[in-house]
Amino acid sequence: MISQTLAKAFEDIVGQANLMTEKADLVTYSYDAAVVDSVLPGLILRPTDGDALSRVVKLCNDNGLPITVRGAGTNLSGGAIPIHEGVVILTNGLNRILEINTEDMYAVVQPGVITAKFAAAVEAEGLFYPPDPGSQAVSTLGGNVAENAGGLRGLKYGVTSDYVMGLQFFDTNGDPVKTGSRTVKCATGYNLTGLMVGSEGTLGVFNEIILKLIPAPAHRKAMVAVFDEMNKASETVAAIIADKIIPATLEFMDNFTIRAVEDYSRAGLPIDAAALLLVEVDGHPAQVEEDARRVEALCKKLGATSVRVAADDAERDKVWAARRSALSALAKLKPTLVLEDATVPRSKIPAMVRAMQEIGDKYGLSIGTFGHAGDGNLHPTILTDKRNKEEWKRVDQAIAAIFDKALAMGGTLSGEHGTGIAKSCFLENETSKATLVYSRRIKSALDPNNILNPGKIIGG
Amino acid sequence: MISQTLAKAFEDIVGQANLMTEKADLVTYSYDAAVVDSVLPGLILRPTDGDALSRVVKLCNDNGLPITVRGAGTNLSGGAIPIHEGVVILTNGLNRILEINTEDMYAVVQPGVITAKFAAAVEAEGLFYPPDPGSQAVSTLGGNVAENAGGLRGLKYGVTSDYVMGLQFFDTNGDPVKTGSRTVKCATGYNLTGLMVGSEGTLGVFNEIILKLIPAPAHRKAMVAVFDEMNKASETVAAIIADKIIPATLEFMDNFTIRAVEDYSRAGLPIDAAALLLVEVDGHPAQVEEDARRVEALCKKLGATSVRVAADDAERDKVWAARRSALSALAKLKPTLVLEDATVPRSKIPAMVRAMQEIGDKYGLSIGTFGHAGDGNLHPTILTDKRNKEEWKRVDQAIAAIFDKALAMGGTLSGEHGTGIAKSCFLENETSKATLVYSRRIKSALDPNNILNPGKIIGG
Repeated sequence: MISQTLAKAFEDIVGQANLMTEKADLVTYSYDAAVVDSVLPGLILRPTDGDALSRVVKLCNDNGLPITVRGAGTNLSGGAIPIHEGVVILTNGLNRILEINTEDMYAVVQPGVITAKFAAAVEAEGLFYPPDPGSQAVSTLGGNVAENAGGLRGLKYGVTSDYVMGLQFFDTNGDPVKTGSRTVKCATGYNLTGLMVGSEGTLGVFNEIILKLIPAPAHRKAMVAVFDEMNKASETVAAIIADKIIPATLEFMDNFTIRAVEDYSRAGLPIDAAALLLVEVDGHPAQVEEDARRVEALCKKLGATSVRVAADDAERDKVWAARRSALSALAKLKPTLVLEDATVPRSKIPAMVRAMQEIGDKYGLSIGTFGHAGDGNLHPTILTDKRNKEEWKRVDQAIAAIFDKALAMGGTLSGEHGTGIAKSCFLENETSKATLVYSRRIKSALDPNNILNPGKIIGG
Repeated sequence: MISQTLAKAFEDIVGQANLMTEKADLVTYSYDAAVVDSVLPGLILRPTDGDALSRVVKLCNDNGLPITVRGAGTNLSGGAIPIHEGVVILTNGLNRILEINTEDMYAVVQPGVITAKFAAAVEAEGLFYPPDPGSQAVSTLGGNVAENAGGLRGLKYGVTSDYVMGLQFFDTNGDPVKTGSRTVKCATGYNLTGLMVGSEGTLGVFNEIILKLIPAPAHRKAMVAVFDEMNKASETVAAIIADKIIPATLEFMDNFTIRAVEDYSRAGLPIDAAALLLVEVDGHPAQVEEDARRVEALCKKLGATSVRVAADDAERDKVWAARRSALSALAKLKPTLVLEDATVPRSKIPAMVRAMQEIGDKYGLSIGTFGHAGDGNLHPTILTDKRNKEEWKRVDQAIAAIFDKALAMGGTLSGEHGTGIAKSCFLENETSKATLVYSRRIKSALDPNNILNPGKIIGG
């Protein structure tokens, strides 16, 4: 329990309006987008400047109070689930874009800036911030960095970690640690930027983030290829990559997902298709024409029944809006949606798609599959009802089987959703006992009181 | 001193032929390419497989013996300088390319593989490994990763850290830590890959490195622009970047460097030019033509007296060979060469070039300047004689002044040479006291006996 005196000390830092203890508020911040049990925090704080953030962190540390920093709560592995009676720090009061430097192509932001708002502000300056997690309309840049969020453009443009040039963050004592630089190259000191990206709030609290920007591509072209067999679509993915074409986006959608998305979005997707590939190529106009032609030819060669190139930006935007609605569309169908992101080397996509069907059959579950096929990063999605204990047991088994398959193919447990609570017990399977020991030593050294989002990634 | 018994134990692991204690060997491995005092190690070991490497590390740790892992010794900040009577582990017995996967575009290598040999092997498979540090003909991939080496192509293609997908390394106990993956996306566990890149052998010993490969650019074009004033050349660099052109390479060379290089390489450089820009654009042929035209137009607009486009690959290769000889050419002129790599945001290149001239004048030193101008990463080079104590004092002052200038412009101490011994005392100036505390906590936790290259980056 947080004492009255301590609550008053927090109030003195953030102001009365930015301290919440009402049950309704505590419940609001008790869960995220992962299928893990919610946990009631004891106190919600909303600092509005770096100084307040620093003082809050120090006060928590001095009193052994666990902190969970929360962006938009779109986390899919439980990283934003608070600790019982702990403190939730909201970043939505730290939502300023501090600098967009068009000459040197970087930006400096506070952690609470919304991803899509930032991308739009950057675009208005003629530049491009590529990372586009599915939740970009609401997700925060701080959350993206903490989770090393991916997105639809990972194939060509990489993920969040490829765009974090530097950070200023607070250690448990509230002191500022500075890492990286506004320069495109920086080999000074340890690469703490690298360590902090994907650390899920367990090693420090971000205050400022320096992000790399790039020139916007001159041209782009989107297309939808329709297949009457899943295998043909997945083999086309591998063929495109093997042909050394790097589309900006190369997404896969199975029939189950197509139907759900079309029902939700009315984008005109062919509901009888066994699978779709949604492809976008971008760059110099001549390169775009050539890549589009090659992709189209490969799709047809490998059995696409049709390939439709978007006629204009409006049609293109409609396709991507439909794709982005997949998660919401699927989530409507059943009480519980489990969205996994086990990832394999790209050439293994056909085998992985087949494996997912077999696992679904074996455990009597319908597993929808869509996602970033070009990255080897599919999202097998299980629709279920967690209250059905018998079925939930089969879901658990199916998830473990998916992970086993991905690892057996040289893959990884998570392409972009992080480890959080949901996958921490599987971590040793992918890495080694020594990796866990090594990781826990880092955590203990940097957070001796174990107040920074304890239990995430490496377990409790 | 290393006892006979212990020496025997090491011999049992690596074999007699791979253990060296002769004075000549110890001297050979007592220095690197930085201007710091050499230190005699006590023992040189050359393990030829991962198992031997692991056992050597464990034996060193059990006996409190400090280890310095050494690639080709081309380090420019003292990271490969051993500890007095400590162990040097050579990686040239671990020089196998274990896998080049053309389908999934990655490779797995041992740390002792030579950078240029690897790049050639990758090229033979129709792929591209872009990082090209100046020393690539002899440098090792393990050394490149440990230093986060840069090179001439950083502008468009990034540095070594942008290509390390995963690592297997040994902790101080010789146990294998696995981080990253063969997949293009990986958000599993802590990003230990990020932490290890640039850690200069202080946090673990690399055994296997997974490197990202990309399709080779279809076309490229190199050109040399000649300027009669330094400022015109440096302003052209800023103008090219501001115009959102991203050349693969954008190098600057002042008259001092031009003369030294021409004298050494006879490449036909114009020795009366105040400065040269060496530019290469690559990609789709249409993009290359357009970028080349724009670069040429900008060079002329900003006062280039001539712009020569390389007629063929032979002429292109000659230009880059000349540029790559800069360090060797300059090193011939005086007994001591100090090569710095303080880096600034790219728009600050004109100001930084001016500042370097002023610092040279103030301290009565001739500072040659060349380097990766497009990255903001110049290499101010001071030719001196360390035995001249009075002059050396001025050199020290000039270096400190260069660092101050770079930091004042929002830059960094090192773009690509690392912190090592040479810059560790300046680290707090760029970061903060808390950054040092944080970094030292990581080091102590992961290396409690302080045996992994002690004294580097964060001081002793």
